[in-house]
Amino acid sequence: MKVGFIGLGSMGAGMSRNLIKAGHDLVVYNRTRSLAQEMRSLGAKVADTASEAAAGVEVLITMLADDRAVQDVIFEPGAAIESLPEGAVHISMSTISVDLSRGLAKSHANKHQNYIAAPVFGRPDAAAAGKLFIVSAGPSESIEKCRSLFAAMGQRTFMINEDAPAANLIKLSGNFLTTTVIESLAEAFALMRKAGVDPQKFLEVLTESMFSAPVYKTYGGIIASEKFEPVGFKLPLGFKDNRLLLAAAEEAFVPMPMVSLMHDRFVAALAQGLENADWSAIARVTYRNAGL
Amino acid sequence: MKVGFIGLGSMGAGMSRNLIKAGHDLVVYNRTRSLAQEMRSLGAKVADTASEAAAGVEVLITMLADDRAVQDVIFEPGAAIESLPEGAVHISMSTISVDLSRGLAKSHANKHQNYIAAPVFGRPDAAAAGKLFIVSAGPSESIEKCRSLFAAMGQRTFMINEDAPAANLIKLSGNFLTTTVIESLAEAFALMRKAGVDPQKFLEVLTESMFSAPVYKTYGGIIASEKFEPVGFKLPLGFKDNRLLLAAAEEAFVPMPMVSLMHDRFVAALAQGLENADWSAIARVTYRNAGL
Amino acid sequence: MKVGFIGLGSMGAGMSRNLIKAGHDLVVYNRTRSLAQEMRSLGAKVADTASEAAAGVEVLITMLADDRAVQDVIFEPGAAIESLPEGAVHISMSTISVDLSRGLAKSHANKHQNYIAAPVFGRPDAAAAGKLFIVSAGPSESIEKCRSLFAAMGQRTFMINEDAPAANLIKLSGNFLTTTVIESLAEAFALMRKAGVDPQKFLEVLTESMFSAPVYKTYGGIIASEKFEPVGFKLPLGFKDNRLLLAAAEEAFVPMPMVSLMHDRFVAALAQGLENADWSAIARVTYRNAGL
Amino acid sequence: MKVGFIGLGSMGAGMSRNLIKAGHDLVVYNRTRSLAQEMRSLGAKVADTASEAAAGVEVLITMLADDRAVQDVIFEPGAAIESLPEGAVHISMSTISVDLSRGLAKSHANKHQNYIAAPVFGRPDAAAAGKLFIVSAGPSESIEKCRSLFAAMGQRTFMINEDAPAANLIKLSGNFLTTTVIESLAEAFALMRKAGVDPQKFLEVLTESMFSAPVYKTYGGIIASEKFEPVGFKLPLGFKDNRLLLAAAEEAFVPMPMVSLMHDRFVAALAQGLENADWSAIARVTYRNAGL
Repeated sequence: MKVGFIGLGSMGAGMSRNLIKAGHDLVVYNRTRSLAQEMRSLGAKVADTASEAAAGVEVLITMLADDRAVQDVIFEPGAAIESLPEGAVHISMSTISVDLSRGLAKSHANKHQNYIAAPVFGRPDAAAAGKLFIVSAGPSESIEKCRSLFAAMGQRTFMINEDAPAANLIKLSGNFLTTTVIESLAEAFALMRKAGVDPQKFLEVLTESMFSAPVYKTYGGIIASEKFEPVGFKLPLGFKDNRLLLAAAEEAFVPMPMVSLMHDRFVAALAQGLENADWSAIARVTYRNAGL
Repeated sequence: MKVGFIGLGSMGAGMSRNLIKAGHDLVVYNRTRSLAQEMRSLGAKVADTASEAAAGVEVLITMLADDRAVQDVIFEPGAAIESLPEGAVHISMSTISVDLSRGLAKSHANKHQNYIAAPVFGRPDAAAAGKLFIVSAGPSESIEKCRSLFAAMGQRTFMINEDAPAANLIKLSGNFLTTTVIESLAEAFALMRKAGVDPQKFLEVLTESMFSAPVYKTYGGIIASEKFEPVGFKLPLGFKDNRLLLAAAEEAFVPMPMVSLMHDRFVAALAQGLENADWSAIARVTYRNAGL
Repeated sequence: MKVGFIGLGSMGAGMSRNLIKAGHDLVVYNRTRSLAQEMRSLGAKVADTASEAAAGVEVLITMLADDRAVQDVIFEPGAAIESLPEGAVHISMSTISVDLSRGLAKSHANKHQNYIAAPVFGRPDAAAAGKLFIVSAGPSESIEKCRSLFAAMGQRTFMINEDAPAANLIKLSGNFLTTTVIESLAEAFALMRKAGVDPQKFLEVLTESMFSAPVYKTYGGIIASEKFEPVGFKLPLGFKDNRLLLAAAEEAFVPMPMVSLMHDRFVAALAQGLENADWSAIARVTYRNAGL
Repeated sequence: MKVGFIGLGSMGAGMSRNLIKAGHDLVVYNRTRSLAQEMRSLGAKVADTASEAAAGVEVLITMLADDRAVQDVIFEPGAAIESLPEGAVHISMSTISVDLSRGLAKSHANKHQNYIAAPVFGRPDAAAAGKLFIVSAGPSESIEKCRSLFAAMGQRTFMINEDAPAANLIKLSGNFLTTTVIESLAEAFALMRKAGVDPQKFLEVLTESMFSAPVYKTYGGIIASEKFEPVGFKLPLGFKDNRLLLAAAEEAFVPMPMVSLMHDRFVAALAQGLENADWSAIARVTYRNAGL
């Protein structure tokens, strides 16, 4: 398929490479042009503007840092929504707000274009390995049409329903659950450490019994050993997602005290200079409060 | 082995049956005598007092509701600690406080008896099926000696260290993690429901990606469907464990805001008449706060 | 002085009347025109647009519901900032965001106009009686020039510093403190009620000892008697101010767990249908959680 | 009146001096005897045991650190309850648990003695100056009989009802309200400081408008200036009272999230080495979390 791909950061780079490997015909665009140049050697065309990346393609994929970045490439005068052909599909794969996703669905419909929200679970290594979990929502025909793309990028694609923002809500909620795993482990490990019990022993019990899931293994290992490097997902991005979920919850009138608790943890982490750390480093705030 | 077994509630019944099936020689005691009578037909001896259940055994197992119950059968005048032979082992398998476990270790040592803390993860069905996860701590020799007992009751026995209360701390912390799973799912599901997304869809995404653990499957299913029956673990018992963890955390000077949040949920649940419900019904408080 | 006054709601009506009584020459504007008509009989001129209310005045006062309303009357094409004379002063007296206040300071400076933030403490009865507490910040010369206006509307005017948004931060923080008084009283009263102690007795002890302040008397009386009528300050406005403070705190990297707690209370109150109640009715959420 | 007075710490010393000044006949007892010796020069008799201090008196006053200390002097074999005459009154003035107060009421009734709970609000300087606020509950006749004693120690005595533990609940709740004032001010001041606004300016606005109460003046001044010395009320005692309130709330099934929040603050403060600080130093935890 002819695919435009905008956003070649640590996630997008791996995803676009996997699409090329799978034989798709890519036009890539990235604001920092150097990142795009690497893709040329793999056979991608490099566009000079977002608009150019969207012109004439069947599918446009965006994988960008935040709402603002998506708005810039899609809605700015002369941007992608103007050049994307009628009948083409925009797959928004980054973690954006429910509100923006709703706006994109409407705007694309007005232009007779299709819109799918398909945010992903997985860190950069999963993106590189084509092992992402993809959560898609939108018109089922469009999703069907994009199956081969999803298959190249992920190990599994979930279909939620026809309403695109539902996928964004699920992605934000999933990230929230991960933050609760981080915080609950940090609290328990702080207690273990001060009581003279090895956190690794506790982690072993957990992951080989009721809590045998990647999220406990991955974050449990990081927090128990305090090895917050390398940075898989930057703390300010985790904070952003927390804020987007708070906003969605506010709009729906759902009090979510655990989301608020995590909000305070993120703010404290930023106050304490952790802006370049992995989001799991919110555990440091918990440790410090315990005098560790 | 000659084993005394005290406490034949929903957990203890299954555990003692499995010991009998495995060929061990049981003397059982239960305050409510009718529950003990059933065991007679399986070949157990029924003791009239806790003291009698401890007399002449190699191993004494207690599986009781709370600290008070353990203190009553072990320490009261004429109770089990008096009749338990020197060199015998007391395995305390119920969820008790770190503080009481410390006291038991000391008292048994004074009597030249051995003490193991070996609390379990798993609900009554797992106890019946011999599929518990057992977390043991105490003198490694004693644990070694009891291997065949653990093998009859559980699918896996973890050895933490030589300090018995460490096992209790791990058990309480594990239960805490389960409460955070319940609460975080309840909050997310409340949002899904109000936003028109099927919680089951969200749960499917979770359990087939990063959150593929029994704890999410079990409690996710219960909360998404609001089927809080049958009662596997009563809410007041969950509250008790939360309090025991708060006490241990206080003693070690570890602030645990998520434990406090769950404390407030449990109190609200009890204020709202959920004292006979399964502990997962704390989700009802979350739902009600969201106007559901 | 020649004064333009925009916003004649329950607060603005009393404030503008007091300015007229004090002999000032008012041009009033209100979106809902009927509210403005009443002022004509008192001697005010009624403007047809915000722009007209700002034309030729020495001072323009805005007392509007939220940021959006202020942006509309000040910044929209053909709005007040265009017609306000050079050298005139805009006093923004409603509770707006720190961010918007910063923007107003800059925009007015660009137009060679002066800008003061002067939000108020006090409910509609205090506004009617000229008994508001006014918190002003901005160029001291401009504040000096407006003394007679402040004197007509309030019992006391505080001068913070030359940086207008400081006054908004103080106003938002003051409202936050009031919400903590509401919540702390609600929690304590719930306990008194369930323990059989008359909350009024407790309130008497408080207000005649260490807590002898209007905020405890006013809200204590409301919550103890559960008389949340008449509505002095609508709950959604209290929620709005809470959100504005959260945003300011986020920007400054200050974790404020009590603000988050109040956020969750407001959301729960809205989920439970209290959108037309006085903000003190968040106490109902606390009472309900206690099973009252 | 003939009065036994047990407990001559920073509060009890001032209180007993004021009773002597008012012409009462005191027998004092203190575990650390040197503190009692000072009272001899003022005309008090010094008892060697708690029992001796209670023998033959009309009224016995206890002003001790915690539940344990009260239990020791009242209930231990050969302690005060044995020597206190029938018909005499025990006034328990320290901050003890609702539960212990209930127990004292019952035990004294069994001995045909009278029991009043009369905890106080005020720091050591108020105790020395006879300016305490006294909250009394118990048989009204007994309270009437003790009026002259209360008048010597306090500026005002409140009578709650005939049920002594009600006074303890009010005292604990009052202390809780003070902790919320400390925390809310600390959060707001942290924001002011990071936003470049002088906390003293904010405090001035508060204390001269809606928040004109001693509790805001006293603690606002301490926290704004970060002068947590001299220590008026030690942090671990504040923590103890917080725990006693949590216990009372738990028993009555009242969720009190602000009490839980303060619990976590106290634990963090102790984890961070503030065990000898004034309880207002919990503000340090808030400041540290904000990176200050």
